[in-house]
Amino acid sequence: MKIAILGTGSWATALARVFNDNGHTVMLYGIDQSEIDDINIRHCNYKYFKDVRLEESIVASASLNDVIKDAQYLLITIPTQYVRGVLEQVKPLLTQPVTIINAAKGFDMNTNMRMSDTIRSVLDNTKIHPVVSLIGPSHAEEVVERMLTVVCAVSLDEDYAKDVQKLCSNHYFRVYTSTDEIGAEYGAAYKNVIAVASGIIAGLGYGDNTRAALITRGLYEMSLYGTVKGANRETFFGLTGIGDLVVTCSSIHSRNFQAGLEIGQSNHALDFMAHNTKTCEGIRTCKVIHDDVATHDYGIEVPIVDAVYRVLYENATPQETIHSLMLRDLKAEQ
Amino acid sequence: MKIAILGTGSWATALARVFNDNGHTVMLYGIDQSEIDDINIRHCNYKYFKDVRLEESIVASASLNDVIKDAQYLLITIPTQYVRGVLEQVKPLLTQPVTIINAAKGFDMNTNMRMSDTIRSVLDNTKIHPVVSLIGPSHAEEVVERMLTVVCAVSLDEDYAKDVQKLCSNHYFRVYTSTDEIGAEYGAAYKNVIAVASGIIAGLGYGDNTRAALITRGLYEMSLYGTVKGANRETFFGLTGIGDLVVTCSSIHSRNFQAGLEIGQSNHALDFMAHNTKTCEGIRTCKVIHDDVATHDYGIEVPIVDAVYRVLYENATPQETIHSLMLRDLKAEQ
Repeated sequence: MKIAILGTGSWATALARVFNDNGHTVMLYGIDQSEIDDINIRHCNYKYFKDVRLEESIVASASLNDVIKDAQYLLITIPTQYVRGVLEQVKPLLTQPVTIINAAKGFDMNTNMRMSDTIRSVLDNTKIHPVVSLIGPSHAEEVVERMLTVVCAVSLDEDYAKDVQKLCSNHYFRVYTSTDEIGAEYGAAYKNVIAVASGIIAGLGYGDNTRAALITRGLYEMSLYGTVKGANRETFFGLTGIGDLVVTCSSIHSRNFQAGLEIGQSNHALDFMAHNTKTCEGIRTCKVIHDDVATHDYGIEVPIVDAVYRVLYENATPQETIHSLMLRDLKAEQ
Repeated sequence: MKIAILGTGSWATALARVFNDNGHTVMLYGIDQSEIDDINIRHCNYKYFKDVRLEESIVASASLNDVIKDAQYLLITIPTQYVRGVLEQVKPLLTQPVTIINAAKGFDMNTNMRMSDTIRSVLDNTKIHPVVSLIGPSHAEEVVERMLTVVCAVSLDEDYAKDVQKLCSNHYFRVYTSTDEIGAEYGAAYKNVIAVASGIIAGLGYGDNTRAALITRGLYEMSLYGTVKGANRETFFGLTGIGDLVVTCSSIHSRNFQAGLEIGQSNHALDFMAHNTKTCEGIRTCKVIHDDVATHDYGIEVPIVDAVYRVLYENATPQETIHSLMLRDLKAEQ
């Protein structure tokens, strides 16, 4: 099989290795010529993985046409804000039917749609099979080192989820299947906001006890929100919910956690918001969820999202905001 | 109020400080004179907290009678294997009605009863109010440093849970209430087995992705087991379930995690089982749950408990056992 990979970032590179290890042909599409040269000439992706030597069969190109040509699968591993634009370029080039494997986690920039909906809305349904999302606790830094990782292939069509499961699975990359696309996608997006909060907490000097309380309340909050959006609540207690949440909230590998850490340490978000150039999906996701809950009568509260929103967008002081978040009124749990 | 505290360990000392900070009288009961002297003369508990200076109003005694005399609350913070024996000594000394606050997590040595049941079975019901358990993500090392911690006061009688909630709560120690004693106690016990597995995984060199997958499957497994034992499944998604699980599986403070780490690093459990002298509740809890499931027709599987059991009690190699645990057949999640 040929897998066309949109992106040359860390997740693109790690998944390229998974597919390559499984005997498939991979080609990555990038716009940064130095990253493309790294992959093709020096067989590395130095920006993300300083010590990893990639196989020579993993190649990259700046030609979208070359990448997509003859591919049976199209893997999306670019920041959510660019997904729609790149897919608009992909659309006229798609002459063969492909299965979309989505690994972007968050909401579309303009419409606030989930990624799977965004993909379906852009690409002509006659040329794509159902979308399959790969979601679960999976730092690229560990996958590229072939460290045992377990994720979910999520699709409204179970047969396609199983197909992608077979395509990706090997001795270090294990794949379950799920059909709750809404639950998995909302979980994957929401967890990035909780990870920002977790980073802030660490930056302010709180410990493991506080983080565990935050993760617990975060799981509850994301399951509440996901359920009103149509998710199966059970999904939040699986790999795409608590699994992804735990790994993102506790690891230096997470850019969302790192963003929070920087904000917590400086005790304000102004510098970070002004100077950050890295992809940090939690920052925009926070605003999307905050605005959605603020403008609808869902009958739920999202105190963690609200607290992170106030810190990021209303210049609230992290110390006071997080402290009052964690000291909400005593009551029976849930 | 006077709180009699059974134990001079880390959790006893940390909770003594919480009660002392709240203006209550505390006295710890110990059997190790050097620990008692540490607390009374040097105002520290050097064995557990090298850098913490305790308040002079925190005192300890080797006289059970002095400790219990006039106390309105009796806090149990000793290893589960000694709880029954110490309570047998307490029983004839109890002249006044007391509320038992249980902080021991596991099963009674001889009967395999939960701690609350054990306490009720030993102490005359006419002299004790309902048992209240304190359970949640709470490393003593952080509580004693007054780092923000959120736990649950769990009791079959909600009024007593609320009473203990008020007794303990302050600006760094926050307490929710719950009435699902079965769910909270099984979660608190089960998580120690998952923490041993998490330590083994770390010791074998697996990363954060694998641990997150283990935690996710562990949560599912403990909720399955707890539910057949009569728990409310929701409880496992709260502070006493996932909260306690996350903090125990990810922290060097956890003795269960450390035990697993040592076993994983040496790739066998023989040395550890032969020489370990520290309290590691997960080791016995693993056997209790394994034997319970093996001898009853619950219709559930507990693969993590089974794997840890084989490593601890049947000399199975951690590497192979954990590897096959994590590579179980691909299927739909749950």
